[in-house]
Amino acid sequence: MLNRTASIITILFCCTAANAEEGMWTLDNFPKAAVERQYGASITDAWLDHVRLATTRLEGGCTGSFASENGLVLTNHHCVRTCLSQHSTAEQDLDALGFYAKKADQEQRCEAEQVSVLIGTRDITAEVLAASDEKEQSEANKARKATLTRLEKDCEQQAETQGQKVYCESVNLYNGGQYFLYRYKRYEDVRLVFAPEVSVAAFGGDPDNFNFPRWSLDMAFLRVYEHGRPAHTPEYLPWRAEGADKGELVLVAGHPGSTERLLTVAQLEHLRDNVLPNWLLRYSELRGRMIQLATQGEENHRIVQAPLQAIENVLKVRRNQQLVLMSDAFMAAKKKQETALRDADGAPWKDIETALASFDTFYLRYLFIEQTAGLQSSLFNYARALVRVAMEREKPDSQRLRAYVEPALPGMRQRIVAARPIYPVLEQQRLSFSLDKMRELLGPDDPFVKQVLGNRSPDELATELVEGTQLADPKYRELHWVGGIKAIETSEDPMIQLALSIDAEGRALHRRYENEVEAVIRRAEEQIAKRRFETEGTDTYPDASFTLRLSYGSVKGWIERGKPVKPFTTTQRLFERATGSDPFRLPDSWLAVRGKLNMETRFNQSLTTDITGGNSGSPVIDRHGNLAGLIFDGNIHSIGGDYWYDAKLNRSVAVHPQVMLEALEKVYHARRLLKEITLAEQPESITRAE
Amino acid sequence: MLNRTASIITILFCCTAANAEEGMWTLDNFPKAAVERQYGASITDAWLDHVRLATTRLEGGCTGSFASENGLVLTNHHCVRTCLSQHSTAEQDLDALGFYAKKADQEQRCEAEQVSVLIGTRDITAEVLAASDEKEQSEANKARKATLTRLEKDCEQQAETQGQKVYCESVNLYNGGQYFLYRYKRYEDVRLVFAPEVSVAAFGGDPDNFNFPRWSLDMAFLRVYEHGRPAHTPEYLPWRAEGADKGELVLVAGHPGSTERLLTVAQLEHLRDNVLPNWLLRYSELRGRMIQLATQGEENHRIVQAPLQAIENVLKVRRNQQLVLMSDAFMAAKKKQETALRDADGAPWKDIETALASFDTFYLRYLFIEQTAGLQSSLFNYARALVRVAMEREKPDSQRLRAYVEPALPGMRQRIVAARPIYPVLEQQRLSFSLDKMRELLGPDDPFVKQVLGNRSPDELATELVEGTQLADPKYRELHWVGGIKAIETSEDPMIQLALSIDAEGRALHRRYENEVEAVIRRAEEQIAKRRFETEGTDTYPDASFTLRLSYGSVKGWIERGKPVKPFTTTQRLFERATGSDPFRLPDSWLAVRGKLNMETRFNQSLTTDITGGNSGSPVIDRHGNLAGLIFDGNIHSIGGDYWYDAKLNRSVAVHPQVMLEALEKVYHARRLLKEITLAEQPESITRAE
Repeated sequence: MLNRTASIITILFCCTAANAEEGMWTLDNFPKAAVERQYGASITDAWLDHVRLATTRLEGGCTGSFASENGLVLTNHHCVRTCLSQHSTAEQDLDALGFYAKKADQEQRCEAEQVSVLIGTRDITAEVLAASDEKEQSEANKARKATLTRLEKDCEQQAETQGQKVYCESVNLYNGGQYFLYRYKRYEDVRLVFAPEVSVAAFGGDPDNFNFPRWSLDMAFLRVYEHGRPAHTPEYLPWRAEGADKGELVLVAGHPGSTERLLTVAQLEHLRDNVLPNWLLRYSELRGRMIQLATQGEENHRIVQAPLQAIENVLKVRRNQQLVLMSDAFMAAKKKQETALRDADGAPWKDIETALASFDTFYLRYLFIEQTAGLQSSLFNYARALVRVAMEREKPDSQRLRAYVEPALPGMRQRIVAARPIYPVLEQQRLSFSLDKMRELLGPDDPFVKQVLGNRSPDELATELVEGTQLADPKYRELHWVGGIKAIETSEDPMIQLALSIDAEGRALHRRYENEVEAVIRRAEEQIAKRRFETEGTDTYPDASFTLRLSYGSVKGWIERGKPVKPFTTTQRLFERATGSDPFRLPDSWLAVRGKLNMETRFNQSLTTDITGGNSGSPVIDRHGNLAGLIFDGNIHSIGGDYWYDAKLNRSVAVHPQVMLEALEKVYHARRLLKEITLAEQPESITRAE
Repeated sequence: MLNRTASIITILFCCTAANAEEGMWTLDNFPKAAVERQYGASITDAWLDHVRLATTRLEGGCTGSFASENGLVLTNHHCVRTCLSQHSTAEQDLDALGFYAKKADQEQRCEAEQVSVLIGTRDITAEVLAASDEKEQSEANKARKATLTRLEKDCEQQAETQGQKVYCESVNLYNGGQYFLYRYKRYEDVRLVFAPEVSVAAFGGDPDNFNFPRWSLDMAFLRVYEHGRPAHTPEYLPWRAEGADKGELVLVAGHPGSTERLLTVAQLEHLRDNVLPNWLLRYSELRGRMIQLATQGEENHRIVQAPLQAIENVLKVRRNQQLVLMSDAFMAAKKKQETALRDADGAPWKDIETALASFDTFYLRYLFIEQTAGLQSSLFNYARALVRVAMEREKPDSQRLRAYVEPALPGMRQRIVAARPIYPVLEQQRLSFSLDKMRELLGPDDPFVKQVLGNRSPDELATELVEGTQLADPKYRELHWVGGIKAIETSEDPMIQLALSIDAEGRALHRRYENEVEAVIRRAEEQIAKRRFETEGTDTYPDASFTLRLSYGSVKGWIERGKPVKPFTTTQRLFERATGSDPFRLPDSWLAVRGKLNMETRFNQSLTTDITGGNSGSPVIDRHGNLAGLIFDGNIHSIGGDYWYDAKLNRSVAVHPQVMLEALEKVYHARRLLKEITLAEQPESITRAE
């Protein structure tokens, strides 16, 4: 599954000269000439503009695309699970049952979801560098952040004076090589239209995840609303029912979360030696705890499924990332690349080495305390956000932590006050687990551990906090949001009191991280980016950053240990693999119509397009701008794509339009929806693009 | 905890020139001169003979030492947990309550336990090499094994003709550099005399495990019986109540399980890239499942504790082993060492690389199928052993798998038919877990996975097998042992039927492993050992192999990140750290007598002796042959000792005699026991040794 939780680090890095089909390109720098040469296809600016406006970012960490002019958004089932769980109860589990709004007024609001469309970009590199260039590292770091905040704010205010409401976000491309300001139209009223049963959406479950051949109907429809009515979205992608042919050019638009293809060797080693092993062991244990919890009654089984599958997905990603990083051949290649780029001095690389060596000495405390890995629970997250936002709002924007500047607050408020189910049993388990790991890794005699636990065991404290807090109530959260610092400081809620009492220690670690690590690395990265542009030119793509990109490639299988893997699967083998036991159990809806289905229907397909986590829900587009598939995963080799693109083995995995249309018709009888999709006419822009 | 389950691999390697205090020495090659030089202490042959006869091997994976002439054996609490659980019920949990036989007739039989004493050794190198030298690798491998089997058998038969019953075991030292035949006297009637409550024996639990300063009363007493009466054991270690002084020479005798200090780089990489990461992720998940199971009712809590702590112990070991193997500096040093030893040709090293590259291609199938990692449960282990033994007994010894040759059968029979509690809930959990992992790692379409699971989920199959089998009944197991191949082939027990149905696939993998991996590596190791003797001489020690070794060093702390760690802890801080919550909860017996205890009593101590897993329960001995402590652990740096000895940081951790004696007197009122220990006179051999 390729939603953005699969991404791994915040320290991004940059790009190298691209191989054929390699690259998640920004739209302003898309290699049209290479595509023209290789496929004879002309990708015009009009085509790119159309695709940009037809592609949406799901702020939860996915991509979508408009499927009609009435705000209909196609995305993955696994991208709407939060919304499904919001509308589920012990009696009616929409994850298991699926959902279809037969009538327009049955579409269900996804309270926490936001959908954005990129409407414009502006290069702000000169302004950012001018503000920070002459300063010492940590001063420069502050100035850089303050400038980005100011430009974002100006951008939103300027639009407002023109009667427009936009969301502005600065973007670091080529790792300090370029800074951009991206302007988004944002839809905050998002509703659920259709989702199949999870058993067919995620058929094969964790064993099949990141594998291919594959049979998953990982699709869903949302709809964006404005002023209580479906939004008008004239730029959308019409469906090509038969899909693309083998070998045909396809393009994937989307918001890939992050790649780390040009991290320095020191940064890769930090991942390999600290970040990944630590994370993998902790989450393997949490996975075990959750699997066992799921055996304790039907309701526990239900509530565990979505978070468990999310964890299993990231476990598979990071395990395979670690395999790449542990490969001596891979590391040797990275070292060679780096040596070639380094000048005699090598100062910026050495600076990064020094910064990370310093980070290593407080990494675990930073992780458990400031990044709250020791206090994992949705309830504590609310408490922490409410405490921080209240404190930060007392300051002018220029002095706030970047996450809490004014432009970021509306979205944050929506996420915090949105109703969503909180399951005490899950909260307690996760909090107890994370306190336990904190004690294990910082040691029982660490002062912070002693401060938090006192004489209580992790289990006792977790129970006390989860039972004592009222933060599960959205109104209670809203009250604290509105009440600000006074409400926080006088709150008798134990979770808020805890968040408040440990805030100073967290901030101290945050400052230390900013000054000793981040400031040094940002400056060094800018210097490396400059050197890379000088050496390699600008005909390259930046690392992914959850911003709009376009990849291209073709429908193609690969050779796995000497055996060819074909690019299409069909319905036939889905039924053959359905043992009746999870995760190979088909829903009754499918078993009931088995005789009516065409066994030759194409189900899933593999593509050579270069994608990563965040591309979940991305449209597969043919040269004419038609929808020819729905990205939902990559093969196992695609995980190595975080560090390099392997043209021989790296494949995207998409749902085929044939099975989507057949399932909507024969299994789900979704006539209203089918009519809306298939009766859509070719929009004008497409005609222009041809 | 240093029991042998902490050891990691079966491919052992060998020794290098020893640094001061480095080395787990065989008694025939102990560096007496070095000890004399450094400490002015004369370790005579008589001293060595006495210590050899006073030190016992616990076949479960620990060490012990005789504490009186009446067969009393001192060892660790964590070495007698199987016996404690054997005598525990939901109503009376001896692990939690502790145990003390006030009267002789209250001592409780540990049915599965065997205690051995090394009574003689013989060098058989020439015979083994002569049998295999001229042959091709896989023929040589067969001949080598057949020779070892024959010599073991001859040894036991020869003793029998002289009216002696001995157990003979061949030992590979210096990794094919030497072969020895070790003769043991074996006690099969072992009884439990004393064990404190687990909460004080393992005070600090997993957070404190492998840490120091430390406060654990990890002690227990067993007694060996012969003909229904306490055995006569004239060679025993009298107690030195005050313990050894700081800086004083101490020696540790015991049966360290395995070290891998001179694995080739290829072997270390195989561990680092395949064995360890795989194991760590799987067992982290199992740990999580067990922790959650422990929350499901009091009885589940009870039965989970011992296996959970065993897993947590090995997790800590292997996590730290992996840290060492992932260190670039460590690997570079190993490569340098290897380059220095390799001749121009380097053939044996290349052979090992090739063999392991081949192993990599079927490692997971070998692990899950032949090593039964996919079918983990005590019940399946019984089924597998019964199936294999029945089949092997149909063949002459020379053609059997080495584990099933005639001399190995009596011990195996005792372990199989011994009564021990089987908890279906644990069996089901572990079996379901391991089937799940097998499906995950071999893939749902692997033919073996499909054969075993059919249309059932791992959970369904595990339930079916655990509920269906009668192997929890010792009599049922004995019936199948006695019934042999006929009983097995006609058995209707589902677990036995499963073991039988998959036996061929396992044997095929076993043969492939023997021929492509083991045979090549054994021969290469013999060649490398020869080269090492030529280059480095024989004044070195072999890697540990769960055979008798002697280490020496002194009572000493170390410097931890600039801060000194003192070598002794005292009772004072035990009470300060007792929060009242597990694992920092003291038993009532201790809280009740707090006022009567001397707060200055030495509790645990750190030593520079070189030890590893299997040394659990080892006596710390002063130069006069007195008991001055009881090894139960090492500090966190000692785990790296599997690969190299770090004189600056590597420390053993031992219970101090002061606290053992005070606890026996004031907390446990164990007068009978105290009298037996402290009234013991200095045995004659000690006088000789001085």
